[in-house]
Amino acid sequence: MSGAHTVEVITIGDELLLGHTIDTNAAFISRELASQGFRVVARTTVGDVPSAIRDAVAAGLERAEIVICTGGLGPTQDDFTKSVVAELFGTELELDAQLLEQLRERFRRRGITMAERNVCQAEVPKGATVLPNPRGTAPGLALTRADGRCCILLPGVPQEMRGLTMEQVLPFLLQRASGIKPHPIQYHTIRTTGIAESAVAEQVAGLLRALEPLTLAFLPGFAGTDLRITSWGELDEVTADSAINAAAIKIRELLDAHVYGSNDDDLAKVVGDLLRQHRLTVAVAESCTGGLLGKRLTAIPGSSDYFVGGIISYSDRLKQQLLGVRAETLREHGAVSEAVVQEMVRGVQQSTGADCGIAITGIAGPGGGSAEKPVGTVWVACAIDDAVRTRRFVLPGDREEIRERAAQAGLALLWKTLLTENVITKSASTASLVQ
Amino acid sequence: MSGAHTVEVITIGDELLLGHTIDTNAAFISRELASQGFRVVARTTVGDVPSAIRDAVAAGLERAEIVICTGGLGPTQDDFTKSVVAELFGTELELDAQLLEQLRERFRRRGITMAERNVCQAEVPKGATVLPNPRGTAPGLALTRADGRCCILLPGVPQEMRGLTMEQVLPFLLQRASGIKPHPIQYHTIRTTGIAESAVAEQVAGLLRALEPLTLAFLPGFAGTDLRITSWGELDEVTADSAINAAAIKIRELLDAHVYGSNDDDLAKVVGDLLRQHRLTVAVAESCTGGLLGKRLTAIPGSSDYFVGGIISYSDRLKQQLLGVRAETLREHGAVSEAVVQEMVRGVQQSTGADCGIAITGIAGPGGGSAEKPVGTVWVACAIDDAVRTRRFVLPGDREEIRERAAQAGLALLWKTLLTENVITKSASTASLVQ
Repeated sequence: MSGAHTVEVITIGDELLLGHTIDTNAAFISRELASQGFRVVARTTVGDVPSAIRDAVAAGLERAEIVICTGGLGPTQDDFTKSVVAELFGTELELDAQLLEQLRERFRRRGITMAERNVCQAEVPKGATVLPNPRGTAPGLALTRADGRCCILLPGVPQEMRGLTMEQVLPFLLQRASGIKPHPIQYHTIRTTGIAESAVAEQVAGLLRALEPLTLAFLPGFAGTDLRITSWGELDEVTADSAINAAAIKIRELLDAHVYGSNDDDLAKVVGDLLRQHRLTVAVAESCTGGLLGKRLTAIPGSSDYFVGGIISYSDRLKQQLLGVRAETLREHGAVSEAVVQEMVRGVQQSTGADCGIAITGIAGPGGGSAEKPVGTVWVACAIDDAVRTRRFVLPGDREEIRERAAQAGLALLWKTLLTENVITKSASTASLVQ
Repeated sequence: MSGAHTVEVITIGDELLLGHTIDTNAAFISRELASQGFRVVARTTVGDVPSAIRDAVAAGLERAEIVICTGGLGPTQDDFTKSVVAELFGTELELDAQLLEQLRERFRRRGITMAERNVCQAEVPKGATVLPNPRGTAPGLALTRADGRCCILLPGVPQEMRGLTMEQVLPFLLQRASGIKPHPIQYHTIRTTGIAESAVAEQVAGLLRALEPLTLAFLPGFAGTDLRITSWGELDEVTADSAINAAAIKIRELLDAHVYGSNDDDLAKVVGDLLRQHRLTVAVAESCTGGLLGKRLTAIPGSSDYFVGGIISYSDRLKQQLLGVRAETLREHGAVSEAVVQEMVRGVQQSTGADCGIAITGIAGPGGGSAEKPVGTVWVACAIDDAVRTRRFVLPGDREEIRERAAQAGLALLWKTLLTENVITKSASTASLVQ
C-alpha cells in the first residue's frame, strides 16, 4: 500500500454534524478513489463555521497529499468553503467572466432570470483549476500548493458531486499522479436474489480459505444479498484481476440460479435486456407497490423499447373496472390472494396488449394484517403470453422495505421465467411460449 | 454556543474509509446528543490502524470535552481501539471476571462453546466504567482523564451502538453534566417547493441579523428548498422555543405560497390530508415518471382513503387506449405538450371515476430532447372535478432527478389548487369546485 497517494475527505455542513443528513458523499468519494489506487487515510466532518473549515483543511493537508472537500459552495450566507480555502492558500477570489456567462445561460435556458446572489458562484480563487459542473451552478475547484499538495472543492449536492468526481476529479488526479501508479484496491460484486444471507454464506463457506489474499463480504439489502470479492492492493492489477475472476466463477457456480448480475447491475435492467432480446413487451398491474414496480422499470433509460405501461389498481373497484378482476374472486379469496393476482396479470396483458405482465398484491402495513395474512404477505404473478406463474411471500421489514422487496420479487419471478421457460423470440410482432 | 458540552465523534473501520459502508452511526450519535444539548463540533473517521486511532482520539480530546468512538472493539486481529485508548490514558487492560462469566453464559445460551479468541472482549482498561451491552459481546467503555475530559468506546454494530447510546451513554453523560443540564440544541425546518434556493435566500435576507443567536440554513433537494432555524444552546429551552416559533412565523409570511410543511412533512401526505378533509379521491396518469407519483402517494399509510389508483401510460398507444388521448392531439402537439397532459388528466378521471387527477408527461432523458423541448421539459396537469390547471417546467438534473422533481411538481400543483380554488367538501359522494 506504500506508494499510494494519500487522500483525506472533508465533508462540510451543519446538517451533517446535527445528524440530519447521512454522509453518503464521503463513502462515494472514498470508494471511487480507492478503486483507482488512492488511499483515503482519514475523513473529517465539520460544520458551516469558517474557523473549523480552515483548521480541518490545514490539518488534512498535513496528513494527506490530497484533500477533497464537499459542501459550502452554494450562493447563500452559510457557504464559506471557497473563501476560507482561498485564504488558506494565500490567494483571493476573482470573477471568472466565462463562468458567469455560462451561469446566466443556464438560468436563461430554464426561463428564469438569474438572481444577483448567484454571481458569487462564478468567483474562483486565483490560480485554481475550474472543474466544470454541467449539473449545477457551482463548479468544482482544484488548488495546488507549491509543495504539490492539493485541495479539491466540490459542491455537496450528491448528484453534482458524483458527476464531478467521475468526470473531472479522477482524471485530474490520475494525470497528476503521472507514472508511479500504485496497485489499486479492486473488487467485484456478485448480486443474488431470492436466497437468504445465511444460506449464501453456507453455500460458499468451503471457498473462503482458498480465496486468500482476497476477502469475501456478504452485503444483504432490499434487492437480495450481494457478495463482494476484494483485493486489497497486495496483488498487482493483472494478478488481482484474474484471481477475482477465478473466484467469481467459482461463486457463481455455487449460487447459480440466484445470481442475476454483478456490480451495479439492476434486476430491472437485466429483465429489460432479456425482454428486448426476445422482442417482448411488458406491462405491470400494481396494488400494494402503488407504482414502484413501474418506477423501477422506467428508471432504465431506453425502457420504452419493452415497457408499455400499466395499471395501479390500488382500490378493489379499480381492480374490477380496469383489470377485469371478478367481484366473486375478490369476495371469495380477498384482494391478497393467488386467484386475484392471476386475474390481475391476465387483465393487464389484455388491457394493454403487452406480451408479458407482472402483477403484485399484498399487505405492506403497518395496518391490515391478520393471523392468516400477516403484514408482509405478498402475492406476485408473471405471465408470458398464456403461461402464468405465481408465488407467495411473507416479506420482512417496514412498509417501505416490504414494498421494495415485493417489486424485486415481481421482477425476479419474470426473470426466472424468461430464463427457464422455453421463450421463443418474437419476429416482428408475434411470438409464443413453448410450454 | 458556550455552555454546551462539546463532543467529537470518531468512527473507526477500514470499511468506512473504503466507502463500502455508509457511516450511519455518526449521524445517529450526532442527532441523539444534539437533542440532549450536547454540541458535536467535529466528526472523524480513521481506519483500523493503531497510530491513526491514537492520533484521532488525542486530537479529539483537544477539540472537545467528550470523544465518542465506535468500532474496533471486536475479537479479531483488526480490533485495536481498546488497547490504543487505554495506552493513551496511561492505563492498562485487565480481565473483568464478571464480564467473562456473562460472556461465557451468552454463548452457552445459544448452545455454542465460546472460542478462546473472545476472552479479550472481557478485558477492560483499569478504572474504566463498563457500559453493559445486552445486544452483543463487546460492552461499551467510558474512560475519564484527570482534567475531566472523557472518551467513550462503543462497538460499531449499529444495533448495539444504538442501544448503548440511548440506554447507557446519554444517562452517563447527563449525570456527569451533574445538575448543570446544558440547554438543548433545538431546530425547526420549514419546507418549501416551487422556489429556487437563491430566491428563498433573497426573500429572507433581511431577517438574518434579527434572528441572532438563531441561525438559518438553506437545504436544497429534489422536494424543494428547506430552511432550518437552529438554536445552538445559548438560549434555554423555553426561550429558544418561542424564538424559533417567532422566526418561523416571519419566514412563513415571507415565503407564504411556497411553504407546504415543516420538519419531516412529505408533500404527498400534505396533499393526502387535504383530500381526506374535503372527502375527495385522486388518481394519477403517469408517463415519464412511470409510477413514481403513485409510489409517492401510496408510501403514506392510510392513502387508500383517497388514492384509488392510476394509469402508467408510458407508450403513446396506451395514452390513447387507456386514457382516451386523441391521435390528432399526439400528432399535432407531440406527447410532451399541454394539450396531451390535459387529455391525460381528463382521461384518468373518467376511467377511474376519481374526483381529482394528476397527470405528468415529460422528457426525463438522457435521450429524447430537442432544441424546442430539451431534456427536462415536463408538463403537469391537475384536475378537480371540471377545473383543469396545467404547468410547464424545464427541470434540471439527470433522469432520476428530473423524475423526482416532476412527481413533486405534480403534487405541488394539486396542493396549490386545493388551497387556492374554492373547493367544496364532498358530502357522501358528491362535491364540486366553485370556479
